[in-house]
Amino acid sequence: MSVNEMMNEISEMALISKFAKILPRSPYSVNQTHTSDSEILDVGLDTNYLAVTTDIISEEITEGLYSDPHFMGWMAMVVNLSDIAAVGAKPIGMLLSMTVSPDWDKDFIEKIIQGMAEACHVHECGSIGGDYNTGVPALGATALGLVDKNSVMKRIGMNPGDLVYLTGPAGLGNAFVAIKLLFPDLLDKYPFKPMARIKEATIISKYATSCMDTSDGFIFTVDSLFRLNSVAINIDAIDSICHPAVMMMAEFGTPPLTFLSGIHGEFELCFTIPPEKEDAFLNEMHSNHFSPVKAGTVYPEINSRKGVFINKKLFPSTEARNLWENSTSASEYSMNLLKLSSDFLTS
Amino acid sequence: MSVNEMMNEISEMALISKFAKILPRSPYSVNQTHTSDSEILDVGLDTNYLAVTTDIISEEITEGLYSDPHFMGWMAMVVNLSDIAAVGAKPIGMLLSMTVSPDWDKDFIEKIIQGMAEACHVHECGSIGGDYNTGVPALGATALGLVDKNSVMKRIGMNPGDLVYLTGPAGLGNAFVAIKLLFPDLLDKYPFKPMARIKEATIISKYATSCMDTSDGFIFTVDSLFRLNSVAINIDAIDSICHPAVMMMAEFGTPPLTFLSGIHGEFELCFTIPPEKEDAFLNEMHSNHFSPVKAGTVYPEINSRKGVFINKKLFPSTEARNLWENSTSASEYSMNLLKLSSDFLTS
Repeated sequence: MSVNEMMNEISEMALISKFAKILPRSPYSVNQTHTSDSEILDVGLDTNYLAVTTDIISEEITEGLYSDPHFMGWMAMVVNLSDIAAVGAKPIGMLLSMTVSPDWDKDFIEKIIQGMAEACHVHECGSIGGDYNTGVPALGATALGLVDKNSVMKRIGMNPGDLVYLTGPAGLGNAFVAIKLLFPDLLDKYPFKPMARIKEATIISKYATSCMDTSDGFIFTVDSLFRLNSVAINIDAIDSICHPAVMMMAEFGTPPLTFLSGIHGEFELCFTIPPEKEDAFLNEMHSNHFSPVKAGTVYPEINSRKGVFINKKLFPSTEARNLWENSTSASEYSMNLLKLSSDFLTS
Repeated sequence: MSVNEMMNEISEMALISKFAKILPRSPYSVNQTHTSDSEILDVGLDTNYLAVTTDIISEEITEGLYSDPHFMGWMAMVVNLSDIAAVGAKPIGMLLSMTVSPDWDKDFIEKIIQGMAEACHVHECGSIGGDYNTGVPALGATALGLVDKNSVMKRIGMNPGDLVYLTGPAGLGNAFVAIKLLFPDLLDKYPFKPMARIKEATIISKYATSCMDTSDGFIFTVDSLFRLNSVAINIDAIDSICHPAVMMMAEFGTPPLTFLSGIHGEFELCFTIPPEKEDAFLNEMHSNHFSPVKAGTVYPEINSRKGVFINKKLFPSTEARNLWENSTSASEYSMNLLKLSSDFLTS
C-alpha cells in the first residue's frame, strides 16, 4: 500500500484528503495536509515560521465528561497549546472561540474564563481576543506560535532504527474517562489536568526526527505515525509505558492496552529519537528534570508488514481508530474497545 | 457616561470586557479589546502586522436560515474575510473549523467545501488546514491576514465632521431573512451572497479614520462606533442608503429602518472619511468601479447627547442591540424589532 492508501483506511483522514483537493492551498503554507500537528506558515520572518492550530472541545462537555467549568477552560487552551508544542513552537497568542450554553450562569462562565487564564499563565502565553456565542457548548481557541525555521517538528521524518519516546506515561486520558464514570471518588488520587509540553518540546526539537501529540490517545498517534512514515512501529512493553492510573484500573480487570487504544488522549508528545542521539537527548532531558518514557522502535517492516506492533505482533489499529465512528454510543464504544484489546491479547 | 460605561450598556460588550480583565493579554497584541474587527499582532515583521479573526456560523444553519450547503461554506469564509477587510488587511490563509451534522451525507459536506473553495478563489486566498468534527453544525474559520503597519483600520479614530460611508447599500442581510421566510420565490430576484470588501478596503484604508463591518447589521455597527468613539452619529436619509430588497419589502408595510436595525448583517464596511478627503476618496473609489454610499455625519454631540441619531432624532440603539438577547424566539424578535422601529418613526 502507498502512504495515501494507508491513510485512506482511516475514514477521517480520507475525508480531509478529499477536502484538501477541493480547496485552494494558501501559498504561505509550508506544511502538507496531515504532516504536522499545527499548520506552518512562512509570513516573511527571517528565522521563524508562524504555527497556527485550532481545536474545540464540545462532546466532552455535552456528554458530561468535563463538568467542572475551570477544567473546561483549562482544556480548551491545552488541546491547542499541545499542538503548538508538537511542532516545537512557543505560543504567542490565543484567539478564543466560546459557545456557551444558555443554561450556564455568569459565575459558571467566569470560572471557565479563569481556567483559560490559568492555562495562559502556566504556559506563558496570553489572549489576543476571541469570538463569543450562545448555543450548544463548544469551547476552543486558535493558538498562534513562533518556531525557528530549522527546528520545526513534523509527524514525518522518522527512520528505521529510531526510538519512540513519550514525554510521560500513556493512557491517563482514557483512564480518566473510566474513573470519572465508574469510580469518581478516585479522581482526587488520579487527577487529570494535562500540561502542554511546550518546554519539553524546545529540547526534543533538537533531537527528534518526528513528533505528534497523543491528543487522541497513544495507539491512535502511533497509528498515524506509521502510516505517514510508511514504517512498522513496535511497542516493546505495554506495562512499562502506562500511567499508574491505568495500572490501577487494570486491577479491576481491564487490560492496560484498552486505555492505550481509546481516543481520549493524555496530551503527551510522542516522538522519535535516532539511537546515536539517545544519550545526549536523555542527558539534556534529565538535567532539566524531565522524564521521557521509551515506548518502542521503528522498523522498515515487521514480518513483511507495516503497522503498529505490540511485542512484534500486528495490532488492529485501523479497527481501533475507526471504532468510535462505528459505535452508536459511548458505552458500546467502551465494550467494543475492551473486546478488541482482549481478543488481541488472547489470540 | 465614559466610553466604558457606554460600552457596558451592551451586555455582550460588558461580558467581554469582564473576560478581558481576567485573561492575561498577549504581549504580541497591538490592539485593545473591542477596538478593531480583527486582532492585530506584531510578530516581528518590518512593515506588516498580522491580522487574525475567528467566527463561526451555527444558529443560521440550525434555524434553517442557511440551508444551501454551498452557501453555508461561502458564508463561513466571508464572515471571517469581512473582518480581515475591515482592518485593511489582505488574507493570507484560512484555518477551517468544521462541525458537521451527523445527518449530512458526503455529497452535502462536499458542497459546503466547494462553497468554501469558491470563497477562497474569489477573495484570492487559500486554506491552510483545519479542524473537523461531527455534532451540532458549526462552520467557521480563523482568517489570517497581513496589513501594513501604517494603514491598519480600527473602529476608533473618527472625528466630529467626518462623513460616514458604506461600501454598498444597507439592510440586505435582514431583508434576506424576511424574504427567505416569507417570500422564498423572490430569492432569485434579491439574492444574498455577500463579498468581503477586501479590494475596497485597500483604497478605504488610505482615507478612513475608522472602519467596522456591518456583519451584525447597520445600526448595530453605528451603535458600536458611537460608543467606542464617544460621539453622536447622525444618519441623514434612511431610504437613500437602503438596498432595493429593503425598499421592496417596505412595500409590504415594514419600515426600512427595521431592516437596518436587525442583527443579520450585509457585510458591507462602514467607515468614516474626513470631509477634506472626500473628493479624493470618491475619485479613487469610482475610478476602481466601486460605489460607496454616504450614510451620515459625525458630531461631538447632538442635543447634548451622544448616540445614534436618525435625522437628528435619538434612536434607541441600545434597546435594538439588546433585543435579540431579550427575545425568546426569532419571531418574537422580529415583532419586537418592528414595534421598536415603528414606535420610533411615529413618536
